[in-house]
Amino acid sequence: MQASFEFPPIGVIHSCFKQKFGIPRQPGLVAEARATLELLPPYDCAEALTELAGFSHLWIIFVFHRSLRDGWRPTVRPPRLGGNRRIGVFASRSPFRPNPIGLSAVRLLGIVEEDGKRLLQLAGVDLLDGTPVLDIKPYLPYGDAIADARAGYAQAAPRAPLAVTFEARAEAQITAAEADHPGLRRLIEQLLAADPRPAYQAGTASRRRFGMRLWDYDVQWEMVDGGVRVTGLIPLPVDEGA
Amino acid sequence: MQASFEFPPIGVIHSCFKQKFGIPRQPGLVAEARATLELLPPYDCAEALTELAGFSHLWIIFVFHRSLRDGWRPTVRPPRLGGNRRIGVFASRSPFRPNPIGLSAVRLLGIVEEDGKRLLQLAGVDLLDGTPVLDIKPYLPYGDAIADARAGYAQAAPRAPLAVTFEARAEAQITAAEADHPGLRRLIEQLLAADPRPAYQAGTASRRRFGMRLWDYDVQWEMVDGGVRVTGLIPLPVDEGA
Repeated sequence: MQASFEFPPIGVIHSCFKQKFGIPRQPGLVAEARATLELLPPYDCAEALTELAGFSHLWIIFVFHRSLRDGWRPTVRPPRLGGNRRIGVFASRSPFRPNPIGLSAVRLLGIVEEDGKRLLQLAGVDLLDGTPVLDIKPYLPYGDAIADARAGYAQAAPRAPLAVTFEARAEAQITAAEADHPGLRRLIEQLLAADPRPAYQAGTASRRRFGMRLWDYDVQWEMVDGGVRVTGLIPLPVDEGA
Repeated sequence: MQASFEFPPIGVIHSCFKQKFGIPRQPGLVAEARATLELLPPYDCAEALTELAGFSHLWIIFVFHRSLRDGWRPTVRPPRLGGNRRIGVFASRSPFRPNPIGLSAVRLLGIVEEDGKRLLQLAGVDLLDGTPVLDIKPYLPYGDAIADARAGYAQAAPRAPLAVTFEARAEAQITAAEADHPGLRRLIEQLLAADPRPAYQAGTASRRRFGMRLWDYDVQWEMVDGGVRVTGLIPLPVDEGA
C-alpha cells in the first residue's frame, strides 16, 4: 500500500467563524450558521454540479486546517462529558485525529455564480473560515440516515441549556449590523445558548466575561445567574486575528 | 492555503470483494457483506478505540485505491439511471472524483485482537479488499441521520429486482464453502438480486453468463428469464487476480 495519499483542496469555506471558540460542536445544531463554499479551479465548472440542486443536504469532507500541526493523541476529552472522561479518538469527532479530516452534513441553500466564482450557499455549518474542502458528496438518506443507530456516550444532541438576553446597547449594535448580516441576532442567540465555554470553565465562576469573533465583530457577553447576557458587538479591524 | 494535504493510511480493509464488479453500489444495501478493518501501527493502540464499542455504526473514510490513476471527469453516469443520464460528479458518489475519497456508513459488529493485530469487524460494507482507510468516526444519529433529506435523482434505495435461484451443483459447492465462509449463500443471493451488471448490459440479452470473484471463488451465474441462476462456485488459485 502507498505510504500516503495526497489531495489538493477542491474548494474553500468562507464563514462567520474566524476562530475555534464559539463554533458549533456539530453541524446542524445551529441552523442559522451560514457559509459559502467557493469551488477552486479546475473544479469550479458548472458541469460538476449538474443536478446537485436537487439535494437538500451535502456531505462536506474537509481538513481541520487549524489542527494540522497539533498532532494527535489516542484519547480525547469531549466537551459534552464535562472534559473529565477520556474517549478513544476514533470514538470521537475531535479535530485532533491521526488524519485531521472532518465530515459535516450541511444544508444546501443554493448555488450561485458571483464575480466569476462558483459558490455553494450552506447552512447549519460548523466550519471555520478558510477551511480547505477535499470533497462534496450528496446526502443519500437511504444509506446515510440511520435513525436507530446506537451512539454510546453521544446518543442525544448536546443540550443548548442557556437562556440568552441582550443589553440595550448590544441590541442596537446588532440591529445595525443586521443590514450586512441578516439573521445575526438569531445566530448569536443560537450559538451562545449552546454554551461555547470550554468544559472546564462551564459550571465555574472563575471567568464571567467572554468574547468571540463572528465575521468582523467581537461578540461580548457575560455569564449572569446561569444565563448569557450579551453586552456588546464591537467592530474589529478587518483581518485582525484572521 | 496549502497546495495539497498528505494523509497516511491508518488502516486497511480485508473483504470478500476482490474486484469492483459485483460490489454493492452503496453501503448498507447488502447486510451480509462483511469486512475486517485492520488498524496499522501506530494507530492500532487500544486507547484510540475506547468506548467505540458503544456505537452500532461507524463512518469509514477511505481511498478508492483502484480509481487513483483514472482521473476524473466533471460528469458521471450513475448505474441507477440506466447509464444514460449525466450527473455532476459532486452530485454523485462515484469513485471517479477529483479526490478519490470514499465515505461509507457501516455496522460495527465487534472489536477483536488477533495475532497481535487490532481488528474492527464490519458489516454492510461496499469496500474492496485492500482499501486504505484514512479515518474512522462514530456515527452520530442526532447530526448524521437526516431522514427527511431531499435527494434528487437518488431519493430511494436502488431496487434489488432480480430473483436468484441456485443450480444443484452450485448449492453443493456453496454448502461446502460455507464451512469457511458462513453466510456465503445469503451474501451471493443479496449481491446478485441487486443486479451487478453494468447499466448498459442490464435489460439486454447481449451477454448471459457472468462471473464475479468473492473471496477466493469465482461465482458463476446466468441471466435466465429476467432472473439470476447461480451455476457454480469455482475455487480460484489463491492471490490470482488480487
